[in-house]
Parts: sequence; C-alpha cells; structure tokens
Amino acid sequence: MDSSSNSAGQDRATGSDLAVKIYSADWILSVDRNDAVLTDSALAVQAGVITAVGPLAELLAAAPEATHQHFAQSVLMPGMVNAHTHLGMTMFRGLADDRNLQQFLDLVMPAEAAVLREQSVSVATTAAALESVHAGVTTALDMYYFPDVVVAACDRVGMRVMTGPTFLGSVGPEGRGGASQMKWTEEWLASHPARPGWRPVVAPHSTYLVSPEDLQLIAEIAHRYDATIHIHAAESQGELDSVLAQHGRRPVELLDHLGLLGPRTVLAHAVHLSDDELARVAATQTSVAHCPGSNLKLASGFARVPEMLAAGVAVGLGTDGPASSNDLDLFGAMRLAALIHKGVSGDATVMPAAQVVRAATLGGATALGLSDSIGSLEVGKQADFICVDLSRVHTQPVYDPNSALVYAAGRDEVRQVWVAGQEVLRDGIATRVDEAEVTAGLNQLRVEVLTAVAST
Amino acid sequence: MDSSSNSAGQDRATGSDLAVKIYSADWILSVDRNDAVLTDSALAVQAGVITAVGPLAELLAAAPEATHQHFAQSVLMPGMVNAHTHLGMTMFRGLADDRNLQQFLDLVMPAEAAVLREQSVSVATTAAALESVHAGVTTALDMYYFPDVVVAACDRVGMRVMTGPTFLGSVGPEGRGGASQMKWTEEWLASHPARPGWRPVVAPHSTYLVSPEDLQLIAEIAHRYDATIHIHAAESQGELDSVLAQHGRRPVELLDHLGLLGPRTVLAHAVHLSDDELARVAATQTSVAHCPGSNLKLASGFARVPEMLAAGVAVGLGTDGPASSNDLDLFGAMRLAALIHKGVSGDATVMPAAQVVRAATLGGATALGLSDSIGSLEVGKQADFICVDLSRVHTQPVYDPNSALVYAAGRDEVRQVWVAGQEVLRDGIATRVDEAEVTAGLNQLRVEVLTAVAST
Repeated sequence: MDSSSNSAGQDRATGSDLAVKIYSADWILSVDRNDAVLTDSALAVQAGVITAVGPLAELLAAAPEATHQHFAQSVLMPGMVNAHTHLGMTMFRGLADDRNLQQFLDLVMPAEAAVLREQSVSVATTAAALESVHAGVTTALDMYYFPDVVVAACDRVGMRVMTGPTFLGSVGPEGRGGASQMKWTEEWLASHPARPGWRPVVAPHSTYLVSPEDLQLIAEIAHRYDATIHIHAAESQGELDSVLAQHGRRPVELLDHLGLLGPRTVLAHAVHLSDDELARVAATQTSVAHCPGSNLKLASGFARVPEMLAAGVAVGLGTDGPASSNDLDLFGAMRLAALIHKGVSGDATVMPAAQVVRAATLGGATALGLSDSIGSLEVGKQADFICVDLSRVHTQPVYDPNSALVYAAGRDEVRQVWVAGQEVLRDGIATRVDEAEVTAGLNQLRVEVLTAVAST
Repeated sequence: MDSSSNSAGQDRATGSDLAVKIYSADWILSVDRNDAVLTDSALAVQAGVITAVGPLAELLAAAPEATHQHFAQSVLMPGMVNAHTHLGMTMFRGLADDRNLQQFLDLVMPAEAAVLREQSVSVATTAAALESVHAGVTTALDMYYFPDVVVAACDRVGMRVMTGPTFLGSVGPEGRGGASQMKWTEEWLASHPARPGWRPVVAPHSTYLVSPEDLQLIAEIAHRYDATIHIHAAESQGELDSVLAQHGRRPVELLDHLGLLGPRTVLAHAVHLSDDELARVAATQTSVAHCPGSNLKLASGFARVPEMLAAGVAVGLGTDGPASSNDLDLFGAMRLAALIHKGVSGDATVMPAAQVVRAATLGGATALGLSDSIGSLEVGKQADFICVDLSRVHTQPVYDPNSALVYAAGRDEVRQVWVAGQEVLRDGIATRVDEAEVTAGLNQLRVEVLTAVAST
C-alpha cells in the first residue's frame, strides 16, 4: 500500500485506484433514507469513491473487469464516526478511574501539563487511531493540541480526523494564548480548507474556561472560514451551576445568546438541557455528540437523546477521551446508547438498533458537517466502509444484522476497514503501521506519565 | 486432553494432573480478602486444585520439578461466575429486540414451545458454554430445561454449570408438571449431590408463575437436599403490580413470608426492592444475581446494588439469557455494573473496578454457595482461572489492572481458561470442541426457530 496516499480525503487516483472493485457480503447496511438491509447486494468503488450500490449480479454485469470480494456471514456498513474524543489521552487511559470530576482533574491536569508535547501527542494519537480503526471507526472529531501532529498521526494509520486549534481560555500546551492564538487559528483555518471528508475545526473548550468575549471572537473566525465549532457543553451539574453563577445563564443558553449555536456547531455531551435549550438546539440545527460511556463513568447524568432525535437534532456518538471512558470503541458506545435510554425512559422500544447504527455513522457524519461525503453507503460518497464478521459463536444466529451489531457484536468482529477505498485494516491487522511498534510507543509513555504524577 | 475427564469438579487425578504446574503473569488478581494485586507472583496447581499462591521465586524453589508458564502483560484472575442465565436461549439471540416485555414474550414463548427439546437445548447450550469460556466464564448458574442435557453440554466444552429442575407452574417443555415434577425433582436432587464446584439447584421460575403452595413444597424439597433455590424476583414494575394484585404482597416480601429467603437462595434481578425487602435480603443472607444488561434492555429498572453491597449482600453478576441481553459476556456485565450505578447515584466513586471484579468472581461464587471451592485464587480452591491479555493497543498503558479489566478490556482479551486445572481455552481457541461445528449447529437452529415463529 502506498503510504504516501492521504487517507483523509486527498487520495490521488493511481492506476489501481481507477480499477473498479466490487465488495459484497451477506448483509449490507447502507444507512440510507430507508435503513435498508440489503442482501445479494454489493458496492462498487472506484478512485476512492462509491460508484454503485445494488444487486450483486447487476454490479458484476456492469463492470466485468472489476475485482470482486465477498464476505460471508458478514456485514458491510459505513465506517463509524466518533463525534467527540481526545485521541491523545490514550496515554492517560486508566490513570484516574472511579473518581469524581475534581479528583480526576487534580490527577490528570498536572500530568498533562508535564507530558504533552508534539512527540508524546504523536505517539499517543497514532495508538488512538490504530485502536479506532480496529473498532471500525473511520473518522473522529478530535479536541486536543498540536492539530497538525494529530492529523499526521491519524493519516499514518489511515483514519480521517477532524481537528483544529483548541482554546482553553489560558495558555495551552502549545504555548499560545490570547491574540497570538487567535492569529495562529486564522492562519490554520485558512490553510486547512474543507474537502471531501474534512472540514476545518475550532474548539473552544467550554463556557466555563473560555470567556464570552473570546467565544464571540472564535465564532466570528469560525464563520469567516466556514469552520466547525466543537465545544463541551452542559456536561455536568457542576458545570451548570458554575456557568450560571459566572454568567447568569446556563451553558447552552449562553452559547445561544453569544450566537454560537447553529448548523456548524457540535455540542459535546449536552446532558443537562432545559426544554427551552433542547428546542433551541433543534431550531438552530446545532448538533450533539452523545458520549454515554463518559457520562456514566463520570456520573454526569443522562442526556435526553430520544427527545433530541425526535426533535430532529443530528446526534452522533462519541467515546470522549480514553482517560474518561476508557476506550475508543463505538461498538461499546452503540451498546450503551441503545441500553441506557431504555432504562432511563422505562420503555424498551426507544433507541432501536437501526437508529443506533445510524447515530454511529450518518448521525456523526451529519454532526460533523460531512453528510455529503461520508456516513452512508451511497453513490458519490467517499468509500469509507467496514466489514463486520458475524460468524463467531457469540454473534450467532443472526435474525437481524442491526441487532447483532448493537447487542452482540464488538470491536473484535471488525475484520476489514477501508477509508477512501484504501484498505487500512485487513483480516484484523492494520496495513499501514507496525502494531507492535505503535503499542510499544504508547506503553513507553506510561513511565513518563507516572513520573509526572509522582512529582506533582 | 482426556475428553472423559469431567470439568465440573470430578477430575480424576491422572498422572499428568499430579504434576505441579506453576503459572505466573505480570499481574495476579487473587480476589482474596485484601483485593491484592500481586506482581512477581505465581500460582501452583496440582490435581486440579490450587496448592500455592505467592512469590514466583518461592514457588519455583519449592517445586523444582514443576512446569512453569509465564504470561507477559497479562492478568491471571479467578474464572468468572455468571450468576444468572438461560444458556439454551442462544438459539433466540436477537430474535425479539427493542420490544417491551409483553411483545418479547409474545414472540419468544411460542418459538420456545415449538423448538425446545433435548437435542436443540444440547446444541444451543454447547454453543453457550463455548461463548462463555471465550469470555472467561468458568461457572454459570443456569435456569432452563433438561438439566442433564445442560450439564453434559457444558461438560463437553469444559465449563462448570449449576442447574436443576425448573418449575413454570404449568407443564414445561419436558412434559412434566405437578406431582410428577415434584417426584422427579427429588430424584434429580438426590442423584446430584454437592461436590467441589457444584451444588444441586431447583429453580421455581418466579412468584408470578409458581403458586405459593408449590413454592413452599419446592422450598421443603430444596431444604431436604441442601439445594440452591434459583428464582426470578422483583425484575420489573409489571411483576410487582401483578404479584401484589394476586397475592397481596410484593415478590420478595412474599418469598420471605413463604420461607424462601435464606443463604441457599439466589434472587435473579432483584431490581425493585423496598427498604424493608432489602434489609430482609441482607438479614437472611439471601444472594442476588445482578443482570445490568438485561435490566436496561428490557427497561426493567436499576437495581440498588451499591446499597446491597453496603448491607453485606452477596451480589454476583449475570448476563441473563442471550435473548434478553444478548450475550454471555461478563466483561460486558462488569462494564455496565461499574458504569450505571455511577450514573444513577450521581457519584463517580461507587462501584470501583476492584469491587466489580470481585462481584464477577467471588461474589458470584458466594451467591451460588460455592465460595469454599471457587471464586478466588486461594490455596485449596479449585484451579478455575483465566489469563487476560492486556498487551493490545486498546488496553495500554496499564496503570491499574482492575481498571484495565473493567473499563478497557473485553472478552477477546481472554486467551487461556482453566477449569479444575484443565486448559479449556488455549490461545483463544477451545481445546475440547470443534468451534466451527458447534457454531454451525447453533446457526442451523435459526431456520427451525424462524419456521416456528412464522407458524404462530
């Protein structure tokens, strides 16, 4: 595989890319308008783009020169979209569990301050991208530091990432703050324009760390460069109390007031929404990244996801960072999203499997502003898709592939992953990086983190 | 491997069993009184029993003839105990998801009536045992039909199972009811006496299906044969309302009134307990099988597990049957148990990882009345233990092995499983059965089930 090809949407059409490839499986979940479960069907890929989805016999007849690969007892479906994460936090996975938010921050923030630099973020993000593609994630919305390093690390593995400058309301690990950060952000956004499978992002951390004045400046810049705004909002009751005390408004109410809600904004968590806020999120076409694992583990609360979906809000699924939740596995997030809203509502029919699969794919793509290029298997979209093997004993028998995916399958059923038509996972093994080397790199950061923790 | 050796606690001490085998790993979780995380340590096994746990160097010096196997970046821990399941329901996995209880029963019960017989239960239970050992489960408390078939199926794979006659309050799939079932139950219990890793079981389904008179008769029989009573109790609000209307008491209150609470009783679910009932469960040393996946998926409610544990109740973890929850994976149950009680209580410190690991192992063993023979790695106990590989990218780095097990690892990290010292899973592959054959058998039941569903 040509390691110089860019998986993040800039594939060069090489000779082999121009060849038509046909992929079929026992089931295809296209996640199109009808949530169709296709059998005896296939998709055709050329130059990294889906050129046909339909009956296998028709596709084969239309392209007699095409190569054809069939996956028995398997599902082909869109690659999943992790709608909120902090990839580099793999290095802190398991460092501060079973703690309340303050205890968590007291341990993790000094460690972050001591350890974060380009090299460590590169190593930890490469490992995160490797973990992600193993779990069938082909695109992630990341909020962290050194965005060019993050993009390069994900590209090394072959996963798409959307990221950009993060604002903490103070000088961050990159040594920037205030006006210098605003200037750098403008340059960064200008030099990273939208393309298929990518939009520029700017990430003000939250209404409790970033001032209203800076939020408005950031929103203006984002508007100028048509960038996505990625922000934590209404995650916990503590945040709600603090923002209300500081600014006299609830977090989402404040964002609305400042003009930050809208179709280019992704609210991470959005757990504590009033009825009015939920209505405003829907009316402004603001998107939500639902992170059930993190919300449970940090005891943040239960997001009103069934109501959001009913109101037409684009809801994607996120894992949050692996110091909070502690993995980058959207199968886990799908299972939790399907289960907890049944438990909370007392209604076993809410969040049915197909709706959850949609949230993990097209929902996330829509939240990220990428629904025209990824998130479903439809003609003209990027060929981001995965093969999930349902042949093993714990996923058999298969009465309904959506049910099998959400309630029985897990990350280890993911056997193949393609991004822009490039196979980045083959038979469960990454094609572009040496897995042992990447994992060893992550393991080595452990000593450095423990040293940092011990000295604080 | 000698396929005639009985994994359910009746290992014959063959020549090779008398040899001492020493197993070490980077971490050993003994789940002893102190929740110790042992490093540079090992366990010694002879004739299917643990003969030593301690520093590796000491064990090697004490048994210079012993074989020694080390598992790097791995955990050795007690085999997990599935404290409530219906193994044979693998054949209905995914048949009736995203439905309320009545819709679920309307679909599954006719299918069960049409399909259940010795052969189908054998095939489905063999598959269930295979799935279970893959997930590190070495003992299950099963409630289903044809208990000798169930024992034989689990023994074929090498997993322990505790099961026995099930009472539905009507004629069951075995064609027995009333006095003939009582008589058969006595014979069955008499011919299946307790031994290490096994106790006889009798399973009245619930207070809504079995009459108070029959419950008392069953309790007398259970008492006479020192059998465990395994019963669904207080699972849903609907059950509560129905039992209250029928009998004027809540389910657990009724069981208390009838004399069915006590140290030999396992309550499956126990979601809806009043303060008084919770106190009576604790005072009578009644055990609880907590099934978080099923309780969420069927929207049954949230069991008061942290309060039960604080009151000293033995709480094990269960998956429930795979038509309800939909797998037999205690890693999934551990993750849910750790997460949901944080979410419900609003306290991120409840159900810390080590406590959850304890529930999945010794908690379950105690619930089943087997804490003298399984559930922890202590001298004199049966050598039921598993090796969990934490070397892969999604479980790295490891700051705390309990955290890694609960919040990052999954069933696919289980590489080796020993029951009574016999290796039943080696390098992730079952040693006693042909996995493809077992899985194909399960798959074949699908057509039969669909035919049954179509004709009702």
